[in-house]
Amino acid sequence: MTAADPRALEHPTRGEIRLEAVLHALSDPVRLRIVRELADTGSELSCSHFDLPVTKSTTTHHFRVLRESGVIQQGYRGTAKMSDLRRADLDALFPGLLDGVLTAATAQDARVAS
Amino acid sequence: MTAADPRALEHPTRGEIRLEAVLHALSDPVRLRIVRELADTGSELSCSHFDLPVTKSTTTHHFRVLRESGVIQQGYRGTAKMSDLRRADLDALFPGLLDGVLTAATAQDARVAS
Repeated sequence: MTAADPRALEHPTRGEIRLEAVLHALSDPVRLRIVRELADTGSELSCSHFDLPVTKSTTTHHFRVLRESGVIQQGYRGTAKMSDLRRADLDALFPGLLDGVLTAATAQDARVAS
Repeated sequence: MTAADPRALEHPTRGEIRLEAVLHALSDPVRLRIVRELADTGSELSCSHFDLPVTKSTTTHHFRVLRESGVIQQGYRGTAKMSDLRRADLDALFPGLLDGVLTAATAQDARVAS
């Protein structure tokens, strides 16, 4: 994706990312699941990779909230819309926060399953 | 506050606290401010202590969201409604999460002010 790409998607710059928006983005179970999957994979994934229990339009909404809050970046590779965590930005702005949330989510899964 | 207190307020048990609800509770600027003030003080505070830029009914709503998510506990001392962070519960369930959010909020303040 370049600036000239007519399909370029809007993203906040690092300096525009706000903690409250990041926490809100992470507070939804479906969005948290997307973030955990991206974190586990460690690379960008196509939207079609995710098998989520919601409609396509709801899925699009969730990805937009994640993008507009600065949690993920999205871009097109041909016809595929790819998503990736903005880990470097988040870790620079809020050291330990993303890992804290991911660890907490894993711990909660273990508790709920036991 | 005892179980027999007719004004007893409902709280989730430690095991009922969910990460998503905690993140949602922390994602609002007013609620985050309340939590930071409680954390800075390190003891329970009366609702009337807080000078928030919202109406009384909105303030009550924010405290309820914080209580029902398990972030704070509330109880009456005479006519005063006191609030306190459930730090022990949050730290046990999600180690490092609350401190990560508090640190991130302080870092953001410093960035926005500079």
